[in-house]
Amino acid sequence: MTARVLDGQAIGAAIRAEAVPDVQAFTAASGRPPGLGIVLVGNDPGSEVYVRNKVKAGGEAGLWVDLQRLPATAALDEVLQLVDRLNASSVHDGILVQSPLPSAMGKGASQRVFDAIDPAKDVDGFNPVNVGRLVQGRARLKPCTPSGIIEILDRSNIQIAGRHAVVIGRSEIVGKPMAMLLLQRDATVTICHSKTPDLPSVARTGDILVAAIGRPGFVTADFVKPGAAVVDVGTTPVFERETVERLFGPESPRMAAFEKRGSIVVGDVHPGVAAVAGALTPVPGGVGPLTIALLLKNTILAAQGRL
Amino acid sequence: MTARVLDGQAIGAAIRAEAVPDVQAFTAASGRPPGLGIVLVGNDPGSEVYVRNKVKAGGEAGLWVDLQRLPATAALDEVLQLVDRLNASSVHDGILVQSPLPSAMGKGASQRVFDAIDPAKDVDGFNPVNVGRLVQGRARLKPCTPSGIIEILDRSNIQIAGRHAVVIGRSEIVGKPMAMLLLQRDATVTICHSKTPDLPSVARTGDILVAAIGRPGFVTADFVKPGAAVVDVGTTPVFERETVERLFGPESPRMAAFEKRGSIVVGDVHPGVAAVAGALTPVPGGVGPLTIALLLKNTILAAQGRL
Repeated sequence: MTARVLDGQAIGAAIRAEAVPDVQAFTAASGRPPGLGIVLVGNDPGSEVYVRNKVKAGGEAGLWVDLQRLPATAALDEVLQLVDRLNASSVHDGILVQSPLPSAMGKGASQRVFDAIDPAKDVDGFNPVNVGRLVQGRARLKPCTPSGIIEILDRSNIQIAGRHAVVIGRSEIVGKPMAMLLLQRDATVTICHSKTPDLPSVARTGDILVAAIGRPGFVTADFVKPGAAVVDVGTTPVFERETVERLFGPESPRMAAFEKRGSIVVGDVHPGVAAVAGALTPVPGGVGPLTIALLLKNTILAAQGRL
Repeated sequence: MTARVLDGQAIGAAIRAEAVPDVQAFTAASGRPPGLGIVLVGNDPGSEVYVRNKVKAGGEAGLWVDLQRLPATAALDEVLQLVDRLNASSVHDGILVQSPLPSAMGKGASQRVFDAIDPAKDVDGFNPVNVGRLVQGRARLKPCTPSGIIEILDRSNIQIAGRHAVVIGRSEIVGKPMAMLLLQRDATVTICHSKTPDLPSVARTGDILVAAIGRPGFVTADFVKPGAAVVDVGTTPVFERETVERLFGPESPRMAAFEKRGSIVVGDVHPGVAAVAGALTPVPGGVGPLTIALLLKNTILAAQGRL
């Protein structure tokens, strides 16, 4: 048996295509396209890639994307002032501050920035008001990655209601909101994490298994109930040849990609899971494209909410 | 084997006693006691009892409790105006609006009122800002019942970290915040509900089992892992003799109480669970006293935060 591959590229493209009429309607009604302000502080290489993809996808969808850069040496107050300006702006409908902020800003800096973003413009859904509304089942702007995973499952005809969903990882960005969204869809939900004893046997109770821990290849076949739908949220850059060879084998396409580039992005799910799972999101090309598609959708929602 | 009974009365009394020096210190520092405004709309019999207990316990702890009553015919706007006045008041540190509001106010009325309460005075922890902060592990004011359950477990030396906790019920008031608090304490957490297939076998995976569904005696022995700690959040008034007799037997003290009063309050946990569980909270005298103790504690916390 080999798991059905859930094509995030195709699903993400479908969502972006569906958004085009909404963008056109908004633009016609308000005389300007929906606007997304992205704040990038410093030049973390991962963040540069993420932001470049967001800017590109936004432009292709007909949004106005305003990338505001601050140097890595910027003070937290400068970021907060910039957020205040974007909050007050009439042409920025959505605001996104790329994480992580430079570590010199201190612990808790990101949360202070998320707290400062107008909840109506908070397209990442990290402001506590939106987190609270998510728990209460009435959020307008929901975190992009878990919402995107719901879209993958729905559009792949994977039933959620009445199934047991296991989420590995309890981050604010994925694990916790994922659990809440699955619960609202009538799944029974288990959240497990690094302190869970015998993680494989807990994971194996899942008809749906979401892995969001950032440990390459950590979720091996023994974590997976035969036939389960497995969603791989991990995207860890791997620079060690041995790791790539151990996970994918010396003759694999991924090894070849590694030889060419010197690193590849690896998910949390071990390739051997494909022989056990019923369905599986690949990395890359699984959850990632959905996160971006949902960011565009959230920007449009935020813009419509301000009409 | 008979389960150890977790004495909520004693634990609640201990928490209230510990609060006395804090009340005295606040009163000395600010020239007035911590103030709790309680809004009661209409005269639902259950709400009358709850509010009476809260007023009494607050007074005994040295708080100033200001009960504001509105008639059952009050409009939602009147409630919101009253909340605004209490928000602006310098002597009301905590605000609680007793649920349920009269059904004539329409669906969503309670949430609109909770949204209006200043998060710094929101001693129930139902404002979305506080719900969000709870998820993010940084709430100052946490919902009273789940916080009280954590106190019961801690003070009864029941380990949470590394254990599997199963929460039956997914309400905003108990189930969801309970799951979040247990997760923050490093439990593996499963949330199940009315749409969960084979609920007994899911519940039986719990080292800690929290029942919060409001169905008298629903959680029978087959739901319980031998030795588990079982927390009974249910408090449903039962008026049918047959139900009481079926659950407790014709010669039981609870049957006698029923004969005397015509109704008794029954938990979600069947009496037969005592033969399987390792520890068990009774109803009454389990979770209820903790809910009130934590309300007092939250009022003091809110007052201290405004000093």
